[in-house]
Amino acid sequence: MGKNLTKRSEDYSKWYNELVSKADLAENSAVRGCMVIKPYGYAIWEKMQAQLDKMFKETGHENAYFPLFIPKSYLSKEAAHVDGFAKECAVVTHYRLKNAEDGSGVIVDPEAKLEEELIVRPTSETIIWSMFKKWITSYRDLPLMINQWANVVRWEMRTRLFLRTSEFLWQEGHTAHATKEEAMKETLQIVEIYKSLFEDHLAIPTVIGRKSDAEKFAGAEETYSIETMMLDKKALQGGTSHYLGTNFGDAFDVKFQNKENKQQPVFATSWGVSTRVIGALIMVHGDNKGLKIPPKVAPHQVIIVPINPKNENEKEFNNFVDIVANDLNKNGIRYKIDTSENTPGFKFNFWELRGVPIRLEIGLQEYKDQKLTLCRRDTGEKTSIKHNDSSVITKMLDDIQLNMYNSADAFLKKNTIELNNYKDLKEKLSKDNCFVKAYWDGSAASELKVKEDTKATIRCILEDVDNKKLKCIVSKKPAKHIVIFAKAY
Amino acid sequence: MGKNLTKRSEDYSKWYNELVSKADLAENSAVRGCMVIKPYGYAIWEKMQAQLDKMFKETGHENAYFPLFIPKSYLSKEAAHVDGFAKECAVVTHYRLKNAEDGSGVIVDPEAKLEEELIVRPTSETIIWSMFKKWITSYRDLPLMINQWANVVRWEMRTRLFLRTSEFLWQEGHTAHATKEEAMKETLQIVEIYKSLFEDHLAIPTVIGRKSDAEKFAGAEETYSIETMMLDKKALQGGTSHYLGTNFGDAFDVKFQNKENKQQPVFATSWGVSTRVIGALIMVHGDNKGLKIPPKVAPHQVIIVPINPKNENEKEFNNFVDIVANDLNKNGIRYKIDTSENTPGFKFNFWELRGVPIRLEIGLQEYKDQKLTLCRRDTGEKTSIKHNDSSVITKMLDDIQLNMYNSADAFLKKNTIELNNYKDLKEKLSKDNCFVKAYWDGSAASELKVKEDTKATIRCILEDVDNKKLKCIVSKKPAKHIVIFAKAY
Repeated sequence: MGKNLTKRSEDYSKWYNELVSKADLAENSAVRGCMVIKPYGYAIWEKMQAQLDKMFKETGHENAYFPLFIPKSYLSKEAAHVDGFAKECAVVTHYRLKNAEDGSGVIVDPEAKLEEELIVRPTSETIIWSMFKKWITSYRDLPLMINQWANVVRWEMRTRLFLRTSEFLWQEGHTAHATKEEAMKETLQIVEIYKSLFEDHLAIPTVIGRKSDAEKFAGAEETYSIETMMLDKKALQGGTSHYLGTNFGDAFDVKFQNKENKQQPVFATSWGVSTRVIGALIMVHGDNKGLKIPPKVAPHQVIIVPINPKNENEKEFNNFVDIVANDLNKNGIRYKIDTSENTPGFKFNFWELRGVPIRLEIGLQEYKDQKLTLCRRDTGEKTSIKHNDSSVITKMLDDIQLNMYNSADAFLKKNTIELNNYKDLKEKLSKDNCFVKAYWDGSAASELKVKEDTKATIRCILEDVDNKKLKCIVSKKPAKHIVIFAKAY
Repeated sequence: MGKNLTKRSEDYSKWYNELVSKADLAENSAVRGCMVIKPYGYAIWEKMQAQLDKMFKETGHENAYFPLFIPKSYLSKEAAHVDGFAKECAVVTHYRLKNAEDGSGVIVDPEAKLEEELIVRPTSETIIWSMFKKWITSYRDLPLMINQWANVVRWEMRTRLFLRTSEFLWQEGHTAHATKEEAMKETLQIVEIYKSLFEDHLAIPTVIGRKSDAEKFAGAEETYSIETMMLDKKALQGGTSHYLGTNFGDAFDVKFQNKENKQQPVFATSWGVSTRVIGALIMVHGDNKGLKIPPKVAPHQVIIVPINPKNENEKEFNNFVDIVANDLNKNGIRYKIDTSENTPGFKFNFWELRGVPIRLEIGLQEYKDQKLTLCRRDTGEKTSIKHNDSSVITKMLDDIQLNMYNSADAFLKKNTIELNNYKDLKEKLSKDNCFVKAYWDGSAASELKVKEDTKATIRCILEDVDNKKLKCIVSKKPAKHIVIFAKAY
C-alpha cells in the first residue's frame, strides 16, 4: 500500500517502478522488454483511446488494419527510414516448429525458412504506403485519412514499464494529400488533437514545437512534438505528428491524376501516441500516496467505502448504499463499491494508491444523518454533503480535473527558465533538471555540445527568429530559433 | 458495382471474393496470407467489438494485454497444446538488421540471434497462465476473468480473406476458477454471449453443441462451438468456448489456497471470436447485388441520396436535406449523405453493394411534397413517408434486423435434415451441402469414415443419448450422441 511506497523525493525512479507495480498497472513478462498491461492499467488506456478515437473520427479519419509483418525489402525503400528503424527489429525467419528427433522438445524446422525475412512492424509507413499505391490514382481518392490501433515492436536494450518497452500499443495515423499545404494543415490539426488529449483529458500541460533535424522522425520533413514535464523536471515526449513530404509517396511510387489529368506527387503525414502516455500520467500527477488519476480518464471516478463493521441495521444500511450508488449511476458518474472484507483503513490506502479522484465514505453516522462524506484525492479535503445530491460530486470532479491541470501547469512554468549564458546553462543542468528556453544557431555542432556537456537535448523548436542581435547560447553566432533544452525520458 | 458482381448461384466462391474486394472490406497484402482490413470492413468489426465488449464487461470480465511473443519453451508445457499449435507458427530468431558489407541492402545481423526463439502468439493460453501463476495464490484472487483484444498469427498455407488468414484480429478470454462447476458455468455463459452476438446483432441463427475429441481445441477438456450455416449450406464455426479443466493450471504449476488453507488446483476456460465473423456476415446475408448488413452492426444504417441534378432551388433543397439528416441524428440513427459527383444510379448500386439497410432518396418531388422515399436493402420495397417522421425509420430498421434473422433461420431449418441411413447420408452430401442430424456411436472410426467418404465432419454434438435402440448412422452400433455432420469452412 501507500505506506510501503518509496517516497517520491527520495528515489523518483524507484517510486515510479513501485507505483506501477503496486497500483496493478503493469508488470514485466518472461519475454525480455515486453510488458503485461494489467486490467487497471488497461482501463486507463481504454479511456484515452475512446477520447482520441472520437476526436479522430470527428475530424474525418477512419480506422483500418494493416499487417503485423513488413517484408524486409520494404524497410529499405525510404533511405532515412531504414537507418532509423532497421537496427532494433524483431525478425521472423521461419514459419514452423517441429519435434526434435532426439525427443528433446520443440525446435525450429530448418526447412521452413522464409525466402524473405519479415520484420515485426516498428511503425507502419512502408506497409501502408505499399497499399496506398493501390488505393490512390485520382484526386477523387484524396485526402485519404487512416488511423490504426495496433501493437508495434522496437527491440530495446534498456526497458521500463510504459516508458520504453520492446512491444507497446499505440495508434498510428497515416494520411495522403494532394498538396503540401493540406498535409501541413493535417499535421498541425493532429497536434491540436494531441494537445487536447493531454491538457483537457489527462490534465497535463504541454510545450509544443518542431523537432531539430537530429531528433526528428526517420523519413520526416518536419516532426512536431508534444513535450511534457514530469515531476522530476525531465521531459517526456508524449506524441509526435510528422509532415513526411513526398518521401514515402516517392519511395512507393504513388502518384495521383489531378483534375487536369496530370500526374502529381502525393504528400503524407503520420502521427502517433502510445501506452507511454500512461507513464506520463503517473509521473506528472503521482505523489507519496500513489497515483492521482484525472477524473476524465479515471476507470472509477468515485470509490464508495461502506463502513459498518458490526452490520448494524444491515438491510437498511445496504439499501442506503444502493440508493447512493444508483444516484451516481443516473448522473453518469463511474463508481465502484468496495465490499471486500478488508478494514476501512486498508481500503482508504488501497484506493488512494490507485488514484481514484473521490472517496465516498458511508458509515453509520452518515446513514443516520442521510449524508455522505467525500474525500478528494488531489487535496485530501473532506466534505459532508446531502445523500442525494450527486450534482455536487459532478462539480467536484470538474474541479479536481481543473485543479490537477493548474498544479501541473504551475510546476511547468516554475521550472522553465530562460537563459542566455552557456555557463549558466551548464551549471543549472548539472545541479537540477528543468526546461531551459534559449537561443540556438540551428547547427548540429551546438546541439551536440549541449548534449555532451549536460545530457540535455533540444526537445523542440518553439519559434524561429530573424534578428542578428540575438545570439546562440552555445556558439554566440546569430540565433535562428528559440528552443527548449532538457533531459528527457 | 453490383452489376459486375459474379452471381452467387453461379460461383459462390468467386462471388465471395469479388464482394469482399468490391465492397472495400479487405484485400490481400504483400505479406502472404496477411490481409488489410479496409475502413468499411473495419467499421463493421468495431460495431461487433463494441457489442461483445459491453457484454463481457456486464458479466464481470476485464480487459488486459499480454505480450505478442511467447518463448518457445512455453508452448511445450501443455502436451496437447503444443501438438495443436506448434506446426504453424511465425518464429522470431533475430532482433537486429544491419547494412550488408557489399552494399546490397539490409541483412539480418547474424550476431543478433536470440538465445531462445520467440513464437508470435497463435493463441495466448501459455503466456497468460505464466502470469496467472503470479497473480493467483489465494481463493480471494478467484475468479480471475480476463479478456484480450489482439492480433494472432497462425501460418496458413491456403488463405481466404476473413475466413482463413495468417494474421487475424480476435478477442480471447481467459478465466481461472476455484471449482470445475464454476469454470463450466463460465464456459456456457460465454456460449450464451456469443449466441447473442450472432442472433441478436448479426442476424445469424446458430447451432450450438460440444465438439468431438477430434475437433476440440488443443488442450481443452470440452469445446463448445457456435456453428452457422452459410448460403452455400456449408458450416462456419463462428466462435468457441473451451473448458480447459486444470490442464494449463497444472502445466504452469498454478494452485490456490482455499479458506481452509489447503492448496487446490485452478480450473480454466478460454474462448474467442475473430474477424472471421465478418466472413460469416457476408456469406449468410449477401446476394447478387452485394452485402446486406444487419442494422445493428451497419456502419451506416441509412444512406441519404439527394437527387437534384440541375441544382434547382439549391439552397432550400440542401436545407431540406440537412433537416432530414438532423432528424436522423437526433434519433440516434447512423447515416451518411452521398454528395459525390456520381449519378443517382451509380450511387444506388454503390450503396446496395455495401449493404446499407435503408436508402433514403430525396429528389425535387420529395422536396416539394416534404416527403421522403425509403428503399429497404433486404426486400427492395419502396415506401414514402413524411419528412420529419424518423420513428418510422427506426421501426423499419428493427423490422429489417428481424426479417434478416428470420430469412436466415428459415434457410437453416430448411437445409437441416435428419437421416438414419448411411447410404442416404453419402448420397445427400455428394449432391449438395446441408446439415445432417444423425446418431453417432462416439467412435473416432465412424467420424473418420464420414470425413473420408463425404468430406463432412462432426460440427457439434447436440445431445447425448442413452437408449440401446438408437443406432449410429455409420457403424449401426449403439448411438451415444446426436450430432450435426456438415462440410465446413
